[in-house]
Amino acid sequence: MAMSNLIEYDQASTEVRAVYDDIMATRRTDRVNNFWKAIARDPTTLRRTWQSVKEIMTPGALDALTKEMIYVAVSVTNQCNYCIASHSAAARKAGMTDSMFAELMAVVGMANETTASPAGIRWKSTSSSK
Amino acid sequence: MAMSNLIEYDQASTEVRAVYDDIMATRRTDRVNNFWKAIARDPTTLRRTWQSVKEIMTPGALDALTKEMIYVAVSVTNQCNYCIASHSAAARKAGMTDSMFAELMAVVGMANETTASPAGIRWKSTSSSK
Amino acid sequence: MAMSNLIEYDQASTEVRAVYDDIMATRRTDRVNNFWKAIARDPTTLRRTWQSVKEIMTPGALDALTKEMIYVAVSVTNQCNYCIASHSAAARKAGMTDSMFAELMAVVGMANETTASPAGIRWKSTSSSK
Amino acid sequence: MAMSNLIEYDQASTEVRAVYDDIMATRRTDRVNNFWKAIARDPTTLRRTWQSVKEIMTPGALDALTKEMIYVAVSVTNQCNYCIASHSAAARKAGMTDSMFAELMAVVGMANETTASPAGIRWKSTSSSK
Amino acid sequence: MAMSNLIEYDQASTEVRAVYDDIMATRRTDRVNNFWKAIARDPTTLRRTWQSVKEIMTPGALDALTKEMIYVAVSVTNQCNYCIASHSAAARKAGMTDSMFAELMAVVGMANETTASPAGIRWKSTSSSK
Amino acid sequence: MAMSNLIEYDQASTEVRAVYDDIMATRRTDRVNNFWKAIARDPTTLRRTWQSVKEIMTPGALDALTKEMIYVAVSVTNQCNYCIASHSAAARKAGMTDSMFAELMAVVGMANETTASPAGIRWKSTSSSK
Repeated sequence: MAMSNLIEYDQASTEVRAVYDDIMATRRTDRVNNFWKAIARDPTTLRRTWQSVKEIMTPGALDALTKEMIYVAVSVTNQCNYCIASHSAAARKAGMTDSMFAELMAVVGMANETTASPAGIRWKSTSSSK
Repeated sequence: MAMSNLIEYDQASTEVRAVYDDIMATRRTDRVNNFWKAIARDPTTLRRTWQSVKEIMTPGALDALTKEMIYVAVSVTNQCNYCIASHSAAARKAGMTDSMFAELMAVVGMANETTASPAGIRWKSTSSSK
Repeated sequence: MAMSNLIEYDQASTEVRAVYDDIMATRRTDRVNNFWKAIARDPTTLRRTWQSVKEIMTPGALDALTKEMIYVAVSVTNQCNYCIASHSAAARKAGMTDSMFAELMAVVGMANETTASPAGIRWKSTSSSK
Repeated sequence: MAMSNLIEYDQASTEVRAVYDDIMATRRTDRVNNFWKAIARDPTTLRRTWQSVKEIMTPGALDALTKEMIYVAVSVTNQCNYCIASHSAAARKAGMTDSMFAELMAVVGMANETTASPAGIRWKSTSSSK
Repeated sequence: MAMSNLIEYDQASTEVRAVYDDIMATRRTDRVNNFWKAIARDPTTLRRTWQSVKEIMTPGALDALTKEMIYVAVSVTNQCNYCIASHSAAARKAGMTDSMFAELMAVVGMANETTASPAGIRWKSTSSSK
Repeated sequence: MAMSNLIEYDQASTEVRAVYDDIMATRRTDRVNNFWKAIARDPTTLRRTWQSVKEIMTPGALDALTKEMIYVAVSVTNQCNYCIASHSAAARKAGMTDSMFAELMAVVGMANETTASPAGIRWKSTSSSK
């Protein structure tokens, strides 16, 4: 699962560099995640995805920590290991403690369990109705 | 969610009728489920799907009841209401009691819960390692 | 999708009534959701599921609103309409506004989009490596 | 995917050790799977998950082998490699032969294929109706 | 599944009307799908989603028909009935015949079947290795 | 994720060799993918799966490239890394360029995003209706 063919800053076009600069400025960091370097091979996708993520993840009615935990909840449900690692790190940076993470996982597990059950239950009730 | 444009026996081609006849003979019934009447619009898909289902669902190392319950487990996980209804009916016909159904649903729910949890847990352990 | 064969309080056994009573007391309400009445056909599952839900959804490191929104996020990802309706109602009761709901949906949508993309991207990079 | 930060028996609290002891006694083994050691960081989750698993997986209307194969069916559908490995091993221990495993996989594959098809077929029929 | 609280053109703000106008102009139609009227309650989401969809679905290296069929393939896999209906209609408008639809469904079904199988098979091989 | 216990040509039975020969002749290659060598442990599954794949993937109303891209779309949605690698390679062999792949991934990502959103939106509208 090696990540090769990433577009590094040095080799990036002006258009790609502008996005990288905005990512680093917005996140107050001096590095860009491999996710962005990988999709940078298609600059249109890079720009569109970053603009959407930036707009969606900015604190608004929900704060940054809540948004990152929601992201983790979806990623765990979808079994996307890369997404889990990256957004759990962001959630921790935004203040998620070990206890919060444990409760987050417990809710996600329970939500996946009860998602599966009702379908079967519903059919059972229906099929026996007069 | 009305099922229209089903291919009824009367209007079916010889090729389609042959499959319908085999379905009814194999299942010892005088009716064909709507699923088959719907895919009969593409006779190649009808024939191929029936041949596969017939071969796979025939009792072998696993008996008919176990196979139908496994089918229900996958259908509930995939939230496919039509599949749940149809294969739960087949499982009941093959001997599934209310208690067996309740335990089946409990295992399916638990399997979906623990499927979701480990992904998050695994990351947690990994990311904190030295 | 009619819900029949629900176990109403009047017809319920002492064991089932005890769970119903605890649900109503814990949630400060005088009604029990159909979900519980449906699984009450198997009292063991009813008791176990309620105990887990009660323990997991109680405010702790995460407050009730955050937990309900996480539940909604998983339910939307799993396309479970019953779960979405029931837990969105609970989230609203716990204080979720229209703006919070809109941002919740935006994060869920984005998390599902980027979950799908990286898999393809990762392969692309890997397969072209030397 | 190294599993670090697992709670080993020696370092575990009395509460966690009690669960480990019950797992080993119930399963007649002298080792505890990493899954349990990983979630043991949150003793409440450990205790609740083990109690549920123990109650659900105990032979009842369905025998142990059938329950483990159902677990595997859900795990394969969810692409959870850890779950597949762990519950396939349990199924083999309970008597699953190579032939049974091959038929289990065939049913799971077919159930996933037909789960996907009907959705499309249903729409086709509906949309062309008068 | 009634769609209420849709934002109709007459009641829409200037910002929302501008998006509706662009949707109708781009698609050469005089109506806007309910999907857009529903998310218009959050104008930011409406604008961002439309801009992304417009950019992504415009013919480029792939033509419109291929893009719509890919959209249908994902929607069927996700069991999203609304998406299937809406994008199958778009695919038909772009030239999808009954035969093409039948083959599309066959490929989607097969891809979902073989997605499920390898996970189990892979484990089987691995676990028996020396 | 080592693949052991694969059935190589030299050790294969006549029945298995016949399928391998047909795979190599059909695909004009002198090697057989590990997928087939792994399921060859169950010759019935090998034969049935190959016959279905051969019938479904043969160019018809849809050409080979479109079929392979649809296969990739489903595989990415299901997060099946082996399937993605194998069918992306096949798609490239059939003519998929870097630009086509980038657009394919963009459509798949968007389809997964909008699949998740409507469920939540639909409930919101419905629950507020009079």
